[in-house]
Amino acid sequence: MVKLLKILAGPLVSIFFLLNMTSAGYAETTVSAEVGFIFNTFLFLVCGFLVMFMAAGFAMLESGMVTSKSVSVICAKNIGLFSIAGIMFWMVGYNLAYGIPEGGYIGSFTPWSDASSVDTGYADGSDWYFQMVFCATTVSIVSGTLAERIKLWPFFLFAAILSGIIYPIVMGWQWGGGWLAAAGFSDFAGSTLVHSTGGAAALAGAILLGARTGRFDKSGAAKPMKPFAASSVPLVTVGVFILWLGWFGFNGGSQLAMGTFDDAVAVSNIFINTNLAACGGVLAAGAITRLMAGKTDVIQMLNGAIGGLVAITAEPLMPSPLAAILIGAIGGIIVVFGTKLLFSLKIDDVVGAIPAHLFAGVWGTLAVPLTNGDASFGAQLLGVISINVFVFIVSLIVWGIMRGTMGIRLSKEAERLGTDVSESGVIAYAIRD
Amino acid sequence: MVKLLKILAGPLVSIFFLLNMTSAGYAETTVSAEVGFIFNTFLFLVCGFLVMFMAAGFAMLESGMVTSKSVSVICAKNIGLFSIAGIMFWMVGYNLAYGIPEGGYIGSFTPWSDASSVDTGYADGSDWYFQMVFCATTVSIVSGTLAERIKLWPFFLFAAILSGIIYPIVMGWQWGGGWLAAAGFSDFAGSTLVHSTGGAAALAGAILLGARTGRFDKSGAAKPMKPFAASSVPLVTVGVFILWLGWFGFNGGSQLAMGTFDDAVAVSNIFINTNLAACGGVLAAGAITRLMAGKTDVIQMLNGAIGGLVAITAEPLMPSPLAAILIGAIGGIIVVFGTKLLFSLKIDDVVGAIPAHLFAGVWGTLAVPLTNGDASFGAQLLGVISINVFVFIVSLIVWGIMRGTMGIRLSKEAERLGTDVSESGVIAYAIRD
Amino acid sequence: MVKLLKILAGPLVSIFFLLNMTSAGYAETTVSAEVGFIFNTFLFLVCGFLVMFMAAGFAMLESGMVTSKSVSVICAKNIGLFSIAGIMFWMVGYNLAYGIPEGGYIGSFTPWSDASSVDTGYADGSDWYFQMVFCATTVSIVSGTLAERIKLWPFFLFAAILSGIIYPIVMGWQWGGGWLAAAGFSDFAGSTLVHSTGGAAALAGAILLGARTGRFDKSGAAKPMKPFAASSVPLVTVGVFILWLGWFGFNGGSQLAMGTFDDAVAVSNIFINTNLAACGGVLAAGAITRLMAGKTDVIQMLNGAIGGLVAITAEPLMPSPLAAILIGAIGGIIVVFGTKLLFSLKIDDVVGAIPAHLFAGVWGTLAVPLTNGDASFGAQLLGVISINVFVFIVSLIVWGIMRGTMGIRLSKEAERLGTDVSESGVIAYAIRD
Repeated sequence: MVKLLKILAGPLVSIFFLLNMTSAGYAETTVSAEVGFIFNTFLFLVCGFLVMFMAAGFAMLESGMVTSKSVSVICAKNIGLFSIAGIMFWMVGYNLAYGIPEGGYIGSFTPWSDASSVDTGYADGSDWYFQMVFCATTVSIVSGTLAERIKLWPFFLFAAILSGIIYPIVMGWQWGGGWLAAAGFSDFAGSTLVHSTGGAAALAGAILLGARTGRFDKSGAAKPMKPFAASSVPLVTVGVFILWLGWFGFNGGSQLAMGTFDDAVAVSNIFINTNLAACGGVLAAGAITRLMAGKTDVIQMLNGAIGGLVAITAEPLMPSPLAAILIGAIGGIIVVFGTKLLFSLKIDDVVGAIPAHLFAGVWGTLAVPLTNGDASFGAQLLGVISINVFVFIVSLIVWGIMRGTMGIRLSKEAERLGTDVSESGVIAYAIRD
Repeated sequence: MVKLLKILAGPLVSIFFLLNMTSAGYAETTVSAEVGFIFNTFLFLVCGFLVMFMAAGFAMLESGMVTSKSVSVICAKNIGLFSIAGIMFWMVGYNLAYGIPEGGYIGSFTPWSDASSVDTGYADGSDWYFQMVFCATTVSIVSGTLAERIKLWPFFLFAAILSGIIYPIVMGWQWGGGWLAAAGFSDFAGSTLVHSTGGAAALAGAILLGARTGRFDKSGAAKPMKPFAASSVPLVTVGVFILWLGWFGFNGGSQLAMGTFDDAVAVSNIFINTNLAACGGVLAAGAITRLMAGKTDVIQMLNGAIGGLVAITAEPLMPSPLAAILIGAIGGIIVVFGTKLLFSLKIDDVVGAIPAHLFAGVWGTLAVPLTNGDASFGAQLLGVISINVFVFIVSLIVWGIMRGTMGIRLSKEAERLGTDVSESGVIAYAIRD
Repeated sequence: MVKLLKILAGPLVSIFFLLNMTSAGYAETTVSAEVGFIFNTFLFLVCGFLVMFMAAGFAMLESGMVTSKSVSVICAKNIGLFSIAGIMFWMVGYNLAYGIPEGGYIGSFTPWSDASSVDTGYADGSDWYFQMVFCATTVSIVSGTLAERIKLWPFFLFAAILSGIIYPIVMGWQWGGGWLAAAGFSDFAGSTLVHSTGGAAALAGAILLGARTGRFDKSGAAKPMKPFAASSVPLVTVGVFILWLGWFGFNGGSQLAMGTFDDAVAVSNIFINTNLAACGGVLAAGAITRLMAGKTDVIQMLNGAIGGLVAITAEPLMPSPLAAILIGAIGGIIVVFGTKLLFSLKIDDVVGAIPAHLFAGVWGTLAVPLTNGDASFGAQLLGVISINVFVFIVSLIVWGIMRGTMGIRLSKEAERLGTDVSESGVIAYAIRD
């Protein structure tokens, strides 16, 4: 892959600069402050509910990827973590991020309260809502990786800490105007802030938790066969389509405004690039599995979409359409090889979240300077390293403390019965009885 | 539970008043009439399609909750009732509700026709659309409760009467400016008008129809095990996430306007409270099952979300975030205990719609005065009783007449075969044949 | 059916003219150019993401309709074709359609590039996005028909040609202002341009490809029984609900503007008619199966919704609500009898896409003059014939060349194993292992 990248690097860079997305700006807006305020608020609400729906996408993706004896609990995890994140982000997260001093490191531990005024340009509550669903997305990324062997309530405790403390801190560093923003880091909608953060927290958990019993017994069985086969491919598929849909809100809403000609054009072009990157990720991942193994792996195509979407998230506005396709395609390829890498390291990522969110997130963030002249490779590297290391270490500590106290891993017997029976008492499927 | 409520009541009320949601108003709007008209229309259309999608949510929730021999028919019911409600609400429902005289009891039996003008503030058609999906929601609530033993076409006939006559009448009493509105009743988005109405109609049907054969044979088996286990938990989950998504439209759109600073702020805060109430419902229901039974019942968490959402629907604007969480949490707890209550009464509610929509709806409506100073407990009680008694009695009469004439219950043999074979001739699942 | 139509024709036509949808126009708009620009762009983006989500609807509808040994590959096809269409429509499709000379036949082979200006009335990118999802819809229609026996990558090649060349050419004829538009053809949102195009391409493929092995062995088994039973009716159901939701974007967004009183009213009324036509389709298809076979076929109700929606798509604005219901109902009836017709012709349409999209599309397009005085039956006939014949012949040639070179049909052995094992190497379901 390194060789491939080297060969492509030169021409790619030229193409990126030749085909940057450009459009005539509109010098001065004629939209009144109140009308602009409503447009911006509407954007946050519409894009916010699209991102909210990503919670359903993760729930379906993960439900389909786990074995059929862990589906009820993965559903419980997904509805539970979304609830926990919603409350934590109100109680402490929002102001921990946005209450940060300029160039600072941490905000204040106070609940969000409404401070809407026409001058801020949008209803305060609509911004809270939009930021809250980003926070919940970060936590959703973690749940799938750790499926089938983690205890439910310790997972919920970690979800509370990630959504209330860890994510808001790194969010403040950049989007709250903290030290990383001051250092010139650029991460438009969160390839690193959201996706790598979720992936790094999941990686720390996967390492401390260990693999599912028997997962790596037959060395080389890189593609899960029974008894680890995905329980339902159509649920994975609808999950990915929901995520793809939600991503228009994720990236489009991150323009943060819709009340001028320039903003409306920008949101539109973000929609295009977001879509094209996903297309690139799907086709690259599908083609590469076809070329390597003779069969077109649908799971990798689906995860390739996620990889492409994560990759474009750091900069969905500036790339030309062709650049977006290529950024996404590389994201898709990273997913395929990242999955193999984790397998060879015997790290058990049940749904492939680490390659798709952490690895593709790193790629997308580092690729920003290729299309955005205001970004520098050094600042990008600083952001990628500082956030990923911080999140990984803190998560490792939190998981470690929990492991040493309440325990995070199910007993062998509970795992053998399946989480649905042992943790929820509700079997997931009762078809044709 | 009563004890718990008593202990909590004092501090809760204080907290509600301390933390009411407040925001600076914007004295006079500068938005022109036509721009406001477009914003309001846009709000109705966007929120309307979110509520429309709740039909899919109900279909999935119910498909997952019934046994696998009744899934095709529950799908037929859901697509059929949505179609019937759409036609009935155009043909007679809308004007039966909105054609009511001020303070009156019933409107006119005429079809809706377009009377849009800039002065009304929104396109008449967008309002019809938004109100129609509310009407359909009311009917959706009924279908799950009666699953697995009701005849299909008698159910469709009831759906026509409920959507064309019963619901529009109670809708007119309040939202049409009828006698309940004049009496000071307050029900922002329909905890009682929509949810209790659906629940009361379902309860009447469940009583007359009787339980599924064998459902209550093993006394005490309060949690459905085979042969009554839910056929697919992931479908229930995606159904609940879709309902949760739709509820932003349900409550947010009920602000009825988006064309001023004040309205945009209000819609945003409604989104927040709606979300937090659902979070409270999920976590309270999940925690209580864990504490009581040692396992975290995913079905109760999912129904707890509905309970929380129904509870906040009567007043999603005024509560502070903390109040919204508590209102929703109590809604979730009501679902858990309401399910037990129905079981002990041997009333067979296949999907738990009566606790979630009727019981939590009563709670939410009665709780309005806690956060809205303009509401009175007496008027709330009047509305809750009059609507629920009216809907229950009329439904009982309609179901009773149908039972005495065409019959509403399947034969024992048809029930044994399953509704899919006997009523639709299409089996729901054919996996790995 | 002809008899039925003859009986109904007279009164129907009278009713149509009596009840045309009318509303007071608003002489001159007071909305500023920039605010109108933002509204129009917002409409394209919101309606566009609804149509984008139809890709998930098709994926679920088709996943549920195929047998359980071809679900993974139908998922791969749906995510793959959406990706291919996205790239092709950027690379060549958009300008092949919109770069057409007035009254001409074909545009230019150049990639789309952003040319937004306030004067065009909307962000160029939002229009590209909206048109792209229409293009993808056209291709989605093809994939289900050919399921279970077509090779994956030849299908992808056809998807590229259909989305990049065939569809954009016919799109240009009408919506690009080409020769058909000059001839007075009327197709508001694409009953013919999108739906018949997809259906005709699918029909050509189905004829050249042949039926699934054993499909027509037991003559007369018109309703698929094992081994050809639909694998999951609830997935078909959620697919149809998603398509129904998406159709509000499909038809509503085809008003192409939301920045004036008149446009806001028009979009609202389009929502109403779209909904009522689907209602009519569901109920007519359901009732007819009940009357003919004694059982209410859920699959035909679901496909009836699609038939109704396709039928209203050619003219969703002018019909009165009653007319919309009838147009949709006839669409639903066409689906039921069209399915029987294809079966008797031994054409194997796995999901029923040809009756729902091609046949109902012809009906809807020919019905336009009944409610739109500006349309003529002659011009409608010209459009229907020219587009369907063109697409069918070109598709037949493309499929034929592919069959003669790379081959399009799986080997008997691969088909026996199922596409999931032979083409993707991923089984779709692993439940309770």
